[in-house]
Amino acid sequence: VASEGERPAHPAGRDLAWWGWGSAEHPRALPSGALDLLGAELGPLEPAPAAPDAELPAPRPVAALEGVVALRADHEARRAHAAGKSYPDLVRMRSGRPGRAPDAVAAPASPAEVGAVLRACAAAGIAVVPFGGGTSAVGGVDPLAGGHTAVVALDLGALDRLEDVDARSGVAVLGAGLRLPEAEALLSRHGLTLGHTPQSYEYATVGGCVATRSAGQASTGYGRIDELVAGLHAVAPAGELRFAPRPPSAAGPDLRELVVGSEGTLAVVCSAALRVRPAPGRVRREGWSFPTLTAGLEAFRVLEQGGDAPDVARLSDAEETRISLAQGGRSRAVRALGGYRRLRGHADGCLAILGWEGEGETIARRRGRAADVARRWGGVALGAGPGRAWARGRFSAPYLRDALLDAGVMVETLETAATWSRLEALHAAVGGALHDALASRGTPPIVMCHVSHLYPVGASLYFTFLARREAGAELAQWRAAKQAASEAIVAAGATITHHHAVGTDHAGWMRAEVGETGLALLRAAKRELDPDGILNPGKLTP
Amino acid sequence: VASEGERPAHPAGRDLAWWGWGSAEHPRALPSGALDLLGAELGPLEPAPAAPDAELPAPRPVAALEGVVALRADHEARRAHAAGKSYPDLVRMRSGRPGRAPDAVAAPASPAEVGAVLRACAAAGIAVVPFGGGTSAVGGVDPLAGGHTAVVALDLGALDRLEDVDARSGVAVLGAGLRLPEAEALLSRHGLTLGHTPQSYEYATVGGCVATRSAGQASTGYGRIDELVAGLHAVAPAGELRFAPRPPSAAGPDLRELVVGSEGTLAVVCSAALRVRPAPGRVRREGWSFPTLTAGLEAFRVLEQGGDAPDVARLSDAEETRISLAQGGRSRAVRALGGYRRLRGHADGCLAILGWEGEGETIARRRGRAADVARRWGGVALGAGPGRAWARGRFSAPYLRDALLDAGVMVETLETAATWSRLEALHAAVGGALHDALASRGTPPIVMCHVSHLYPVGASLYFTFLARREAGAELAQWRAAKQAASEAIVAAGATITHHHAVGTDHAGWMRAEVGETGLALLRAAKRELDPDGILNPGKLTP
Repeated sequence: VASEGERPAHPAGRDLAWWGWGSAEHPRALPSGALDLLGAELGPLEPAPAAPDAELPAPRPVAALEGVVALRADHEARRAHAAGKSYPDLVRMRSGRPGRAPDAVAAPASPAEVGAVLRACAAAGIAVVPFGGGTSAVGGVDPLAGGHTAVVALDLGALDRLEDVDARSGVAVLGAGLRLPEAEALLSRHGLTLGHTPQSYEYATVGGCVATRSAGQASTGYGRIDELVAGLHAVAPAGELRFAPRPPSAAGPDLRELVVGSEGTLAVVCSAALRVRPAPGRVRREGWSFPTLTAGLEAFRVLEQGGDAPDVARLSDAEETRISLAQGGRSRAVRALGGYRRLRGHADGCLAILGWEGEGETIARRRGRAADVARRWGGVALGAGPGRAWARGRFSAPYLRDALLDAGVMVETLETAATWSRLEALHAAVGGALHDALASRGTPPIVMCHVSHLYPVGASLYFTFLARREAGAELAQWRAAKQAASEAIVAAGATITHHHAVGTDHAGWMRAEVGETGLALLRAAKRELDPDGILNPGKLTP
Repeated sequence: VASEGERPAHPAGRDLAWWGWGSAEHPRALPSGALDLLGAELGPLEPAPAAPDAELPAPRPVAALEGVVALRADHEARRAHAAGKSYPDLVRMRSGRPGRAPDAVAAPASPAEVGAVLRACAAAGIAVVPFGGGTSAVGGVDPLAGGHTAVVALDLGALDRLEDVDARSGVAVLGAGLRLPEAEALLSRHGLTLGHTPQSYEYATVGGCVATRSAGQASTGYGRIDELVAGLHAVAPAGELRFAPRPPSAAGPDLRELVVGSEGTLAVVCSAALRVRPAPGRVRREGWSFPTLTAGLEAFRVLEQGGDAPDVARLSDAEETRISLAQGGRSRAVRALGGYRRLRGHADGCLAILGWEGEGETIARRRGRAADVARRWGGVALGAGPGRAWARGRFSAPYLRDALLDAGVMVETLETAATWSRLEALHAAVGGALHDALASRGTPPIVMCHVSHLYPVGASLYFTFLARREAGAELAQWRAAKQAASEAIVAAGATITHHHAVGTDHAGWMRAEVGETGLALLRAAKRELDPDGILNPGKLTP
């Protein structure tokens, strides 16, 4: 690695549609029959296309930044940074009148320029919203000024270097602005992988993942991003935090853990030293069927606590399994799978996807042990087909969401995690809360759930729910569902978010999450690092 | 578990000798021939027995605590809480004039009483030194008043309940004052184990381990204590922090990681929800010999990064191997082992101890894979004998230290950790610095080292050094060695402490460890939680 680092040869697309996910040209067609199915379950749907453009408020001056950093204040740049990709974000943007946008977009070329921007903004009273891939699902890049005179989006896309590789220690220093596919392309030249694949993989950045404690689809095997952070460099208005890559230490509190997950409210992550490993030679993925959610959960628990969990371990509840099979359409493969499941007495069973990455021999050994456990809980192997289908569609849900919004469907996801002994009650409580909240508004939902990240003490639950949108009251409808689900999560002793982060959407539940003294600690850290309160107002804390 | 929790049926001893380690009655004889060997290598030794008693300053009044908590101010109680078990602590105590002691010992019976003590002390300007097992190796319980009018030791021994067990989730809530053997005895009734065995195991407490980020001898397998913390309850002068047990979360910075390792300077850990697992059915431990340190390190790295590391993985350098074999005396077994090693071309080789815990079949499988890797790096299996010998003596070093001090030997340990690519240079640099610093004072040392905790990105190094004590200048001699080693550690990019914690001894290197902004963050957290600065003055930060 040269001293100035390696840059991506083929930078990933940065052209997310302002009204939705990914490139505007990317296909978004729903599976055939999907709208019929949804109409039958949710009631008659009224199409709701996005407005042709978004009307933005006039930009306020940010003269303090002129000459400090590359700046844009044109319509396209401001519109591209006016929102993340949460359901409320999209509702706001698609209406054509988002109401707010950054007054300018600053694109620092180095950590030193990040520092210069922060100091200039602190002096001038300008809010700063750090912006990586812009993929937040919780309002994390909402351009709120928080009482300041203006707000700039700090686009970190130019911090896009692989700064260092220590293959022997399995550590790579990656610039915050690298998209995950760019990071993987640079690492693959060294025969290495990060192995971090959230659903936002195509657009999410290294810095964004670190700042939000993201988890990837294979994080049961590779570890969450917070487990991969060996060091980092973050710049705050009041100073810099540099933690060289190192193994765990007893030198006091782990301050890295204070920056990781701080969502741009304490400091701007400029680079991270992340654990990497040899790129896997082989990948094996397959479907399994469990007779009940309880059986699948027990199999997953025993696998994880025994050290035998696959790298990918996903278990859909009966409803998600039913919808997945129905959405699969009328193909011969899906019909065959359905027939097979009925034969085995799993007619209302739960579909699981198990995946392994590594060398062939290791995969075979690990797969054998996992299969033994799965069978003990009634699991039946369905072969590689469901695994291939899952892998094909693993990043496609946000595109399909655009098509569903066009069709007049409200679609939202939310996630949580709890200890194993609380998971089933949590599943029932959140599902029930979403049903009740939306049915009482006359828009009964479909609520689906899967388990997708396993830990020794517990696991995550990921809910997807769909309902007929309430035209003109989309946000009220969303808020009612979100409120009900969040209250159920807190009451069940679970965390308000397993990997989507806090942003604006969960800030109101942080008191329940960390308590009054925990909030006071977060605020004390902010006063120290960001005494003028310019960093990402309105996020993380209420 | 009853609502008030389970208490130990047979409380562990709390009678550490004020002048040394463990019970005064515990045998401390050095192996036969050890003194001859040491005399030959270090020069003539002059015995230095401890003073018959310690003269303590008159206690200052702590009237503010009367009626608030059980209090003792008698000589025995104050003497027992006047120091930890670091080399400087022992030098100070054994001199008979330690110069300082707590003015009283407070023994709260509940978290509520902890809170009451802290509020009363904050109001009265009395410093509080949280005291678990009193085993600190770095001055962590030194009763410094930090400018306050008096200082009390807060003995947490009465917080000794197993408060909750969730076997399905593998989580147990343990009172801070439980000694580790007590915790294991309570867990074993449920078929569970914590698996945390630092060298201080016999006396260390749950709360002390959490507050100092301790690592146990099997932490390569079971994980460091910080990896086992799923939740905790800590009480600060300004409020309480309660984190229910949960899997990892994306709900902001991980505030648990701010309390873990805070060494009683931010809050008092009252209980911790720790990960537990089924007690192992079998244990297998064995010796291996590697031709060089380099070969052994590479074998360990490949084992760890490949997911095949044993639960116990220790590798002595050539000097520690030489001394271990020589200390083993002239027994037939040791002679046979030495001869065997010479035959295999490992005459200057490095001894390793590998250990596995679990079910027999799993152990056999894991042992087979580890043996394959070890052989690839020239490793030779030495059978169960060295493993048994290590296990027999695994908690005995601090007793032997007392005997060495009696004999006029300075003996100290220090530890660090770094990424794999830096380990060999670190080993050479610290060893060289200790040699130079002590030889230049006319007391050339023996310096031994072992690797004992493996992580994907690096490993720990644990140094033991012995030298002829400089009578009357023991602390200056110690300081010179400590200074030289610490500077070498910082220059090599390693952490100042892997598991001994910071205490007073490493506080001066925390600026190098976390930077100026990191120190400012720690101070901001302290201002918030302990605005009067009463908690454990002089520890953690310079």
